Amino acid sequence: MNIHDLIRELQEPNDSKIVLLVADGLGGLPLEPGGKTELESARTPNLDACVREGVCGLSIPVLPGITPGSGPGHLALFGYDPLQYRIGRGILEALGINFEVGPRDVAVRGNFVTVDDAGRITDRRAGRPPTERCVAMCRKLQTIRVPGVDIFVEPVREHRFVVVFRGDQLGDAVNDTDPQQTGVPPLPARGADPPSETTAHIVNQFVAEAARVLRDDAPTNMVTLRGFARYPKIATMHEVYGVRPVAIAVYPMYKGLARLVGMTVADAGSTLADQVETLRRLWDQFDFFFLHFKYTDSTGEDGNFAAKVEMIERLDAELPRIRALGPDVLIVTGDHSTPSKLRSHSWHPVPTLLWSRTCRPDAVTEFGETYCLRGGLGQIPAMYLMPLALAHAGRLGKYGA
Amino acid sequence: MNIHDLIRELQEPNDSKIVLLVADGLGGLPLEPGGKTELESARTPNLDACVREGVCGLSIPVLPGITPGSGPGHLALFGYDPLQYRIGRGILEALGINFEVGPRDVAVRGNFVTVDDAGRITDRRAGRPPTERCVAMCRKLQTIRVPGVDIFVEPVREHRFVVVFRGDQLGDAVNDTDPQQTGVPPLPARGADPPSETTAHIVNQFVAEAARVLRDDAPTNMVTLRGFARYPKIATMHEVYGVRPVAIAVYPMYKGLARLVGMTVADAGSTLADQVETLRRLWDQFDFFFLHFKYTDSTGEDGNFAAKVEMIERLDAELPRIRALGPDVLIVTGDHSTPSKLRSHSWHPVPTLLWSRTCRPDAVTEFGETYCLRGGLGQIPAMYLMPLALAHAGRLGKYGA
Repeated sequence: MNIHDLIRELQEPNDSKIVLLVADGLGGLPLEPGGKTELESARTPNLDACVREGVCGLSIPVLPGITPGSGPGHLALFGYDPLQYRIGRGILEALGINFEVGPRDVAVRGNFVTVDDAGRITDRRAGRPPTERCVAMCRKLQTIRVPGVDIFVEPVREHRFVVVFRGDQLGDAVNDTDPQQTGVPPLPARGADPPSETTAHIVNQFVAEAARVLRDDAPTNMVTLRGFARYPKIATMHEVYGVRPVAIAVYPMYKGLARLVGMTVADAGSTLADQVETLRRLWDQFDFFFLHFKYTDSTGEDGNFAAKVEMIERLDAELPRIRALGPDVLIVTGDHSTPSKLRSHSWHPVPTLLWSRTCRPDAVTEFGETYCLRGGLGQIPAMYLMPLALAHAGRLGKYGA
Repeated sequence: MNIHDLIRELQEPNDSKIVLLVADGLGGLPLEPGGKTELESARTPNLDACVREGVCGLSIPVLPGITPGSGPGHLALFGYDPLQYRIGRGILEALGINFEVGPRDVAVRGNFVTVDDAGRITDRRAGRPPTERCVAMCRKLQTIRVPGVDIFVEPVREHRFVVVFRGDQLGDAVNDTDPQQTGVPPLPARGADPPSETTAHIVNQFVAEAARVLRDDAPTNMVTLRGFARYPKIATMHEVYGVRPVAIAVYPMYKGLARLVGMTVADAGSTLADQVETLRRLWDQFDFFFLHFKYTDSTGEDGNFAAKVEMIERLDAELPRIRALGPDVLIVTGDHSTPSKLRSHSWHPVPTLLWSRTCRPDAVTEFGETYCLRGGLGQIPAMYLMPLALAHAGRLGKYGA
C-alpha cells in the first residue's frame, strides 16, 4: 500500500501546530579522526534542551549510500517518497521564481556563459554577472520566437535564468546542452523519444537565436540549458495530510519545492530573524510551518567548518522564539548532510530531533550525530518523519480495527 | 524504482579500490548466557584498529528471522536483492566447477548415495568417497543418453557432482529426488508445470539408467538430485556499478556466485595467505575485490567454538597485508551467521565493519556483535552495503537536483 493512501485514510485534522525546521545540509563529519562534527562542536543549549525532552535519531533521505540533491532531500522531509517523485531541476527553478508552470510546460535551467570566437565555452558562469545584467540579457532572449510554442525567459540571479517552453506534446527526455566543461561548444539538444525530439528541435532553434541576439554581449554571449523537466502531478500536503502548510524560506529553490507540494509560500524576508518573525505573524493562519535555513549547507559547501558551527549556533539562538509560539510538534533536521570536510552534499544520515509532549524519552542529552545513534527514532527513512509528526500532533487515527 | 536502475544512473567510475572481505558465517552466539560470541572472544587487534577508524553495524542478509543459504547471503553482499534474484543450487554448483551453463540449461546438484537391495538409501553421501572415485563414477554416468536432450555430468568432489540437462522448453520447477533421510528410496521427480514435467520425465529416465550403470558400484551405487535450476539472467556488477570485480575464493560455490554477477574468478590458491597474495598480485588489474574466507563457517557448522575463534584470529592476522595495499574502502562482514552453538547457518544479524576515510565515527572500539549494536551503520539490509561502499569510494553522483 502507498503510504499516502494510508495517511489520507487515517488523517484527522485538529488545531495542532507542526514546525519543520530544516537546517540545510545539517549533518557533518569531524575534520580529524576522533574529532567532533560541526553540530557536535557547536554550543547549542536550546537544541540540547529540546533533545532532552524529545526523541532523536538519524534520518536517511533516500537510501543508504545515496547522496540526495535538495529536491529529493526536501520531498522526503515533506513525506513524499523521493524515489517515486522525481522533480527535474528546470521545474524547481521555475517554481522558485514564482513562475506558474502548467501541464503543457517543459522548464529548463539556463546559464549565461562566455564563448570565444570559435563558439567554445571559456566561462561556464559568464564571470557571475550582476543580477541586473542577467535581467537585461533575459529581456533580449524574450524577443526570440519559435513557431509552435510560447517561450518564457525569466531571470533568477547572477548567471542563472529559466526558460519555459509551452506547447502541445512536448517531452522532457532531452539532454543538457551544458557540456560541464570549458574549451568545447555547448552540446546540441537531442530527444530520446518523439515528443522529446519535438522539444529538442525547438530548443536548438532557440539556442541558435540566443547566440545571435547575444553575440555582442560578452561575457554573457551564449547560453547553456540543463535539467529539462515537465511539470509533475503531485498531490498537495493538504490533500494527503489535511494540513494548511506554509513555507518560510529565503531561497527560490526551497520556495519552489514547497509550492510543488501545495504549500503557501510566505514573504519571509532575508534573515533567519525575519523568518521567525514571519512564523509568528502567520502562526494563526496555518498549521504546518516549513522553515528553511540555508547557511548550514552553504558553509559546508564552502568547506568552512568554523562558519558552519557558527551558523548552527545562530540557528540555536532563534529556537526559543520558535518554541515560545507553542508548537505541538517541532522537528529539527536537515535534508541531507553537507560535511565541510567533503565540501559537498553527502550520503551520511542526518541528525534529527522530534519534540512533542508525547515523545518517549531516550538517553540522548545533546544534539549531534554520534549522540543521535542512541536515539529513540533509530535510523529511519526521512519520509517517515511526516507521519511521525502527524501522529505526535494527534492528527492520525488508528489503522485497522 | 529499482535500486540497480538508480545506481546505474549515479555511478561515476574512478580509480578507487574496494575490498569486500567475507568471513563466511561470521556472526555467532555465546555458548552460555552472559558469555561472549566467537568474534567477541577472538583476539582481533587488527580488526579492532579498523573498527576505531571506521563505522560498524549489523547487516541483515534477507529479512529479520530469515536464515540465508550461501547464495542469497552472497547476492545480498554483492548488492543484489536476494528476494528478487533467486539462484538454484544446481546453477551454483555448475558455475563453481567452471561449467558454462547457458539459457537452454537446467542444472542440478547430484550426490552419490548407497542403496540396499530394496533400493532404500543407507548412506546419503556414499561414505564420502575419494574424489577420484567420484570422477570414475561420473564417467559411467556420462554414457547415459536420453532422447531430446544433451546431458552433461561433471564431478565436484567426494560424493558430489553436477548434471546439466540441455534442451528446449525445460522447466526447473522439479522437486528434489533426495528424500533427506535414509531408509527410503530416492523420490521420483515431478514437474509443477508443463515445461517442468518435461524435465521431470527426462530426469526419471536418467535416474533409472544411473541405477542400472552403477548397480555393481556400492557404496556409490545410486544417485540423488537436488536444486533443479535454470540459468538466471542477472546484470553484471560492471554494468550496475561500473567496477571491474574479481573474486578471490577457494571453494567452487563462491567462485560460481561471483561468476554469476560477472566477476572474474582468480586462481586463488588454497590458503588465506595464498588469497591475500593473489589480491596483491591482481591489485592493479581490478578495482573491486571479493575475498572469501570459508573456515569461519565450516568451524561453526562443526559446532567447534574454539576453532571458529581461531579462524577469526587467523583472518585478523592477515588484515595488515590487505590494508597495506591501500584500499579506499574495506568491508569486513559475513554472508550470514553460523553460531557454533547452533551448528548451522542462522538468521542473526551479521557484524559488519566498513572502513574508509569518509566514515563518520561511532563509539565502537572492538569488533563484535554486541559492540556493533552501537555502530553508525545501524542494522541495515546487507544489499545496501554495496551502495555504501560505492559512496565511500566516491563512485556515486548526487541523486536529483
